[in-house]
Amino acid sequence: MRHTADFCINNVNIATMSASPTFANVPYGIKENASVYISAGRIEKIDDAKDVSSQGSNVIDAQGQWLLPGLIDCHTHLVYAGNRSSEFEMRQQGKSYAEIAKQGGGIQSTVSATRKASYEHLLHLAKDRAARLIEEGVTTIEVKSGYGLDLETELRMLQVAKDLEASLSINIEPTYLGAHCVPKEFRESPDAYVRFVCEQVLPEIVKQGLATSVDVFCETIGFTPAQCETVFIAAKRLGLNVKAHVEQLSDLKGAKLAAKYHALSVDHIEYLQPEDIPALISSNTVAVLLPGAFYSLRETKLPPIAALRAHNVPMAIATDLNPGSSPIASILTIMNMGCVLFGMTPEEALLGVTRHAAQALGLNNKGQIVSGFDADMVLWDIEHPCEVSYGINQVRPSRIWVSGKER
Amino acid sequence: MRHTADFCINNVNIATMSASPTFANVPYGIKENASVYISAGRIEKIDDAKDVSSQGSNVIDAQGQWLLPGLIDCHTHLVYAGNRSSEFEMRQQGKSYAEIAKQGGGIQSTVSATRKASYEHLLHLAKDRAARLIEEGVTTIEVKSGYGLDLETELRMLQVAKDLEASLSINIEPTYLGAHCVPKEFRESPDAYVRFVCEQVLPEIVKQGLATSVDVFCETIGFTPAQCETVFIAAKRLGLNVKAHVEQLSDLKGAKLAAKYHALSVDHIEYLQPEDIPALISSNTVAVLLPGAFYSLRETKLPPIAALRAHNVPMAIATDLNPGSSPIASILTIMNMGCVLFGMTPEEALLGVTRHAAQALGLNNKGQIVSGFDADMVLWDIEHPCEVSYGINQVRPSRIWVSGKER
Ligand SMILES: [Zn+2]
Ligand SMILES: [Zn+2]
Repeated sequence: MRHTADFCINNVNIATMSASPTFANVPYGIKENASVYISAGRIEKIDDAKDVSSQGSNVIDAQGQWLLPGLIDCHTHLVYAGNRSSEFEMRQQGKSYAEIAKQGGGIQSTVSATRKASYEHLLHLAKDRAARLIEEGVTTIEVKSGYGLDLETELRMLQVAKDLEASLSINIEPTYLGAHCVPKEFRESPDAYVRFVCEQVLPEIVKQGLATSVDVFCETIGFTPAQCETVFIAAKRLGLNVKAHVEQLSDLKGAKLAAKYHALSVDHIEYLQPEDIPALISSNTVAVLLPGAFYSLRETKLPPIAALRAHNVPMAIATDLNPGSSPIASILTIMNMGCVLFGMTPEEALLGVTRHAAQALGLNNKGQIVSGFDADMVLWDIEHPCEVSYGINQVRPSRIWVSGKER
Repeated sequence: MRHTADFCINNVNIATMSASPTFANVPYGIKENASVYISAGRIEKIDDAKDVSSQGSNVIDAQGQWLLPGLIDCHTHLVYAGNRSSEFEMRQQGKSYAEIAKQGGGIQSTVSATRKASYEHLLHLAKDRAARLIEEGVTTIEVKSGYGLDLETELRMLQVAKDLEASLSINIEPTYLGAHCVPKEFRESPDAYVRFVCEQVLPEIVKQGLATSVDVFCETIGFTPAQCETVFIAAKRLGLNVKAHVEQLSDLKGAKLAAKYHALSVDHIEYLQPEDIPALISSNTVAVLLPGAFYSLRETKLPPIAALRAHNVPMAIATDLNPGSSPIASILTIMNMGCVLFGMTPEEALLGVTRHAAQALGLNNKGQIVSGFDADMVLWDIEHPCEVSYGINQVRPSRIWVSGKER
């Protein structure tokens, strides 16, 4: 007996974003006038469009709209409490960093508010932020901890991240970012904090299954390469993936270090030197670009896009949604910034939030509209996939499916 | 008998944005713990919050949320047809302007698509764009013509703009921008086109009551100061207000010229020289800043904000929503860009879309929450009015009233 798909989207143009040889020279892996069959939450097959009148009731006529993979925001810090808008106002008023710190600004204010916040309150706040992303077609969100820094709050943040998945019917990839900032109780002994991360927190996270990856902030104002390496070793020993914030404000060779531990991604990388790019290729590491932080911090040093492109390093882009350096809850604005500020093409921007973002999260079945992949798909009433990156707040999805279920 | 207000918003914090002496030294003209009485579409009075239990059924308990004036986008080109995303893609792919022009890009492609578009199609497209602004709390939108350039299409564009008002229950201020670009049929004789604008189109617009203001694009790639002056003289003779796109890409002394004709506003002004600022003060002209075009065109020359501030010139900011240089349908993103890219304070950004934007449109009864003013008001669940400028796509209004009617 012939197997029947759960439903079919007919008369649709598809940006498959496929890496397959069939689409090697087709921009966006476009297949026009197609039909897509979805079965058990997966894409079963893609075919030419059929005569609608001869199809059954489980056929959706897309009327020539565009089907894109569900968007993937592969770098966010969206679980936190507290409000940093007054700090923003002080900065704009020309107040010095010393004055702002005296008023209790900076990341420590977020840590302090997050430690005080209940699970319910954190979930409520995170849901509101995630909802902004989902409205724009995001179906998978990576969420980092790192505003608790103590065991209890880090576990609570990761639990909130995990629970967003069921609560919002989307995919969440939780990441433990203990090495985000040295908490005040360890101010005099950062190495002791790193030991606490590796020996106390990491094993507990693994035990509770609360994260699949471990991240670090490798920077002069963060953690040294040696401290980051300690975290990588502990994470790898426990079977977790690693990734790293590197080369955002200076070149500490964090990307090379991360590549040594087969990091899924290196993120920010404005100061990455072209000679360190080959290391990323051999480790299959994705370059995650974060134009929102570049914009908000008024940086001028651009990431080495041309060199990454020349070496065929997969480039992802993400919101970096966080209360300090990137209070931006819009993946579409970030795609536009990737183009306008970083000189990416609209196709690179779309790859950056689909196929390459999936790779940055180690997800082998997402980010493409290809048979066998998860049916995370977004329908857009646009004329061409480049339109998604072209403006700000101009387009919105017309329909969204996550694992074949419509939201 | 005591007059009774139609309704009252109680237990509310207000950013009145008032210019009155009472609020001279109060940032945002803040009045906390207040109640606002609305009657016949106007703000009747503002008082201290009352005991909610003793109030009648026409009392809204705002529960400590913030009431801000309805936002005013005082510079848009949101009526147009056609799609310029492929031109954006070509630009990002590094194609030359010559190649893009050969493919039919640029403003002429918008003119050609707009001329072909029906009234109904233009209205449909404009409504979608305006809806994006309204969702963010915009209650008044200025809309320019200028993509028709012939009599028939310019009248149709202005009719669409006018009809948006009833169709969306917001305020629209239509502006005739005939001197936007020389249409191809006048390519060899720009002066003849200016005569056509002044002698054929302007009188018809006045007769039909389709615009309250006339705008020009004074630029090397637009119209000369002499041509702009001809338009100003004709507009003034017919009793219309004038305003001008000036000093965006070069310093043609357009601002001084506009001030001579008591322009409501001079817009863009990146190249405005500080010595020309006093002219704006004596003519009571508002400086309209357009960070969206600055961002999209990757400009580096900043408008003279510090000098404008020092001279107390009222600064407004606007989306400049248009398909070429500012495809940005978000007043909140523009407020953030005003801060991040132009160094404005959040208070200046909010003044720029309330009190100062009202002044830029010659509206004496909008942009402030003050007794006697139109009850265009937006309620926000925020901790402080600076939060509205702080991020991108983070906050949305909780309730919106236009002339006292809830949307
Ligand atoms: Zn980050
Ligand atoms: Zn304009």
